[in-house]
Amino acid sequence: MFDNSIRFAMAQIDTFVGDIQGNSDKVVRYCAEAAHHGADVVVFPEMSLTGYPIDDLTFRDSFRRAASDAGRRLASRLQDVGLGGLTVIVGTLGLGSAAAQKGKIWYATDHNRLCAIRGGEIVATYDKHFLPTYGVFDELRLFAPGDGVTVLDVKGRRVGVAICEDIWRDGGTVAKLANENLDMLVSINGSPYNAGKMDTRYNLVRKRAMECGAPMMYLNQVGAQDDLVFDGGSFVMSPDGTLLEQSPQYREDLSYWTLPATESASLDLKQIDDSRSDCAELGCLDEQMYDTCVLGLRDYARKNGLDKAVLGLSGGIDSALTATIAVDALGADNVWGISMPSRFSSDGSKTDAEQLASNLGCHYATEPIDDLFDAFQKRLSLEGVAKENLQARIRGVILMGYANRGNMLALDTTNKSEFAVGYFTLYGDACGGYAPLSDIYKTQVYRLAKWRNDEAVRRGETAPIPQNSIDKPASAELREGQQDSDSLPPYDELDAVLSAYIEDGDGRADMLSDGFSQGTVDTVMRMVDRAEWKRRQAPQGPKVSSRALKHDRRIPVSQHFQE
Amino acid sequence: MFDNSIRFAMAQIDTFVGDIQGNSDKVVRYCAEAAHHGADVVVFPEMSLTGYPIDDLTFRDSFRRAASDAGRRLASRLQDVGLGGLTVIVGTLGLGSAAAQKGKIWYATDHNRLCAIRGGEIVATYDKHFLPTYGVFDELRLFAPGDGVTVLDVKGRRVGVAICEDIWRDGGTVAKLANENLDMLVSINGSPYNAGKMDTRYNLVRKRAMECGAPMMYLNQVGAQDDLVFDGGSFVMSPDGTLLEQSPQYREDLSYWTLPATESASLDLKQIDDSRSDCAELGCLDEQMYDTCVLGLRDYARKNGLDKAVLGLSGGIDSALTATIAVDALGADNVWGISMPSRFSSDGSKTDAEQLASNLGCHYATEPIDDLFDAFQKRLSLEGVAKENLQARIRGVILMGYANRGNMLALDTTNKSEFAVGYFTLYGDACGGYAPLSDIYKTQVYRLAKWRNDEAVRRGETAPIPQNSIDKPASAELREGQQDSDSLPPYDELDAVLSAYIEDGDGRADMLSDGFSQGTVDTVMRMVDRAEWKRRQAPQGPKVSSRALKHDRRIPVSQHFQE
Repeated sequence: MFDNSIRFAMAQIDTFVGDIQGNSDKVVRYCAEAAHHGADVVVFPEMSLTGYPIDDLTFRDSFRRAASDAGRRLASRLQDVGLGGLTVIVGTLGLGSAAAQKGKIWYATDHNRLCAIRGGEIVATYDKHFLPTYGVFDELRLFAPGDGVTVLDVKGRRVGVAICEDIWRDGGTVAKLANENLDMLVSINGSPYNAGKMDTRYNLVRKRAMECGAPMMYLNQVGAQDDLVFDGGSFVMSPDGTLLEQSPQYREDLSYWTLPATESASLDLKQIDDSRSDCAELGCLDEQMYDTCVLGLRDYARKNGLDKAVLGLSGGIDSALTATIAVDALGADNVWGISMPSRFSSDGSKTDAEQLASNLGCHYATEPIDDLFDAFQKRLSLEGVAKENLQARIRGVILMGYANRGNMLALDTTNKSEFAVGYFTLYGDACGGYAPLSDIYKTQVYRLAKWRNDEAVRRGETAPIPQNSIDKPASAELREGQQDSDSLPPYDELDAVLSAYIEDGDGRADMLSDGFSQGTVDTVMRMVDRAEWKRRQAPQGPKVSSRALKHDRRIPVSQHFQE
Repeated sequence: MFDNSIRFAMAQIDTFVGDIQGNSDKVVRYCAEAAHHGADVVVFPEMSLTGYPIDDLTFRDSFRRAASDAGRRLASRLQDVGLGGLTVIVGTLGLGSAAAQKGKIWYATDHNRLCAIRGGEIVATYDKHFLPTYGVFDELRLFAPGDGVTVLDVKGRRVGVAICEDIWRDGGTVAKLANENLDMLVSINGSPYNAGKMDTRYNLVRKRAMECGAPMMYLNQVGAQDDLVFDGGSFVMSPDGTLLEQSPQYREDLSYWTLPATESASLDLKQIDDSRSDCAELGCLDEQMYDTCVLGLRDYARKNGLDKAVLGLSGGIDSALTATIAVDALGADNVWGISMPSRFSSDGSKTDAEQLASNLGCHYATEPIDDLFDAFQKRLSLEGVAKENLQARIRGVILMGYANRGNMLALDTTNKSEFAVGYFTLYGDACGGYAPLSDIYKTQVYRLAKWRNDEAVRRGETAPIPQNSIDKPASAELREGQQDSDSLPPYDELDAVLSAYIEDGDGRADMLSDGFSQGTVDTVMRMVDRAEWKRRQAPQGPKVSSRALKHDRRIPVSQHFQE
């Protein structure tokens, strides 16, 4: 009998928004590799030819046309290089029936489209049905919804397709596909990481595979795009929830999985390594969060043409963890740590910064700021917070001098707790193009630092972060004897309130009934609300949580709601 | 016979986002005033009880409940103070049938709702049908669409209602209302200004009034909310396009218009003053743009608890116009202009800055930066652009010192041309909480400066902006003999290309076929694309054009589309 098994290649690639040519080249390379390994079908992520998400590039006429042509051109190219026998599933922007209105108002008329290519042609298309418009997503701004279903015929088998959000909601495409007697369901995705997302995906895919009574492939992109980090982690799951194949997170990958021939009794169940039983499927949560920050920074730098970074090293835990992330992302020789001590800096701070740089093997320089501070103060005679800000801003000027001179990316070391309550100086420590810790609470900063040090020890390397940076009380060191706890609640309490207010969307009454003190709740809510204007001007950083500030949580600057 | 004429009061008010109590208090005050003047119906803007737009406050459970209760509470209050006989039309957030999902993902379930109040009760509601999700609007993120129509009975007459976007699109509510034999159509709006918007509104309302065969009231809010400036300019128009009543722009107002009794032969046609025949209906375009900047700044300061502003005065046209706007918005005694000359500043610059401050009557101080520059350079030895940025950043530190010390709003003087191509120094001249010129091209800056000077002369006052600031070639004065034209195309050419690229959404081929030189087009497109990360960190300013940067035009930082 004819062997109607289908060998799928899972092309978990990183794409570059707007670089249609480069993305297409990569697709061709992966197809060649997959064909060499006997694949029948090669699956690429959502909008793989355009990159994802493209935001308002959607409305640029030249871009729309290039994106829409890209599928057809890819089909020809694949045919030309002898890969026409493959079935290739890619995503791109598809022109809608109406032309986008040029000029004053842009309405969404185009589609987030999947193209199935074979034999030099686009043999089928599918337009995304559910368009996510919440959190970091704005797809109803950008696309018009599709309403059909598409089932591909591959070797006489029925392969249904869906795009990302289509599988996150009941009804729509999946409900229709459930009646299509599928042999296989394939979903192409652009799903950014947040903590716990892998479990959510597993549960979701299990449900959809069961509904369709067929194995399901979840194919995700990998790589960072601005504040979003796509973690990959593609997989295939059987209708009973068994993991049949699993791609790694945080790197490009080409894995294979074969849908058995019809007469084959059962699916080839893959044994998943669960030797690290205290962790989630693909590594501990701490590891995932850390890797998210590393990949976020690496891709932000690379996609913006930068390979070097500079940051201020205060001897504190935030700059220590940021520097470690930077070295892991860019290499020690591409990272410059600048210690900028003042009369308020403790001796420990200077030696801790130097020790960190030495552990990491990165560049290190010292730029004391007292003389510059005195020169400004002779003029301005600032007091209180204004005087503290002045020190941070002098450091910002020095840091940006290094960045501009060396064509380096300046890194903001602000963490999410500080970012949330406005405990940072705009144009001071918030200088920079990227803030790796902007979605990591202070208590998580400690946890990640500990995880990274432990990991180094596990690998037989030196723990990078000096124990003293972890142990000593947090301080901005902008006045004599200052500690963060002078201005803020203890971090464990602060972070608990912030997480309730930001991630859980709790109101004042919710938090009080959860046992937080009224004083803390009122102080924290007011600080968060008043810092909106400062956050708007802070650099972006990788989304790690279920609700990052700014892009994910859009609050007016001018507002006066009080509970 | 019973007089069934209806006296409408047009309550064109400014609301404060989130301040449900304060907004409700204002509504009651306006109702009392309108009742005193014999009104039957008082009409308030879209979402008048919550303020507009509320962005993700929509998802805060305590806010949703307070907003949803606000209509009922207002009805009781009006009844209690003896205003129960009025029919009052207000807007608020209305709870949808499903509860918003608490926590991880927020879906839109609530409505942008109109409430008609009479006799201590909400007698009718209407939920907005079309939810704008383009440009600066994100309403499909925030609200679920309504699908009914509502016709109020007032003195036996049929008054149909709609909310803003409902009248901008064919179909939906208006199409249904056209069959409802209306005596009057009322639309409540939150429509931000952009150049030419009044004509667009007139044309639109004429069309809808004609469709419904009834006079139509267009009631807009006034006042600024972050980057959006609501200009008011409410009006009533007859089905034949005659303007029956016109409220002023840029200030709160309570005007009246009476729908004649049924037996009355004709509408009371109002003669509109067209004595300024070279201008649009409500003042020249230049005047409108200037007033938009003034109101934008005034409300941003007020709504954020600030009454004083500080800015650097370079002697150039941008800082001169910004200072003039600041004085018009906040009063001369609340504005500090700081001259911060360096060795590269021309003598004229210093005297022009001083003359400007003297003309305006604002505070003035001089802070030379050479000693600070030398102190940094002894350390950093920067060259080229890095050296230029250093000067701008030293000025930024001084300016923020003044701002922090005096609790003043720092103003960024960057114009749209500079903003677009990245011709500004982040953390330098881009310091500040608000950028009044961020949507005004350089060539428009000159025009507005001329308009403001001419206007002063018309009023018999001193022209504020020194002629020399208008006449001399533009220069950042960051190196010897520098002129903007060393780095940029001439401003008339630059602004024409920018306007084609940004407002019109033209591609490279479009611009070349329009006769722009290839070199200029390629340079400008590349500069605009590469400056996205800098713009993200720049302060917001008033939207004046059909497409402001950032909020209105959302382009990824990391992208590589090339035409």
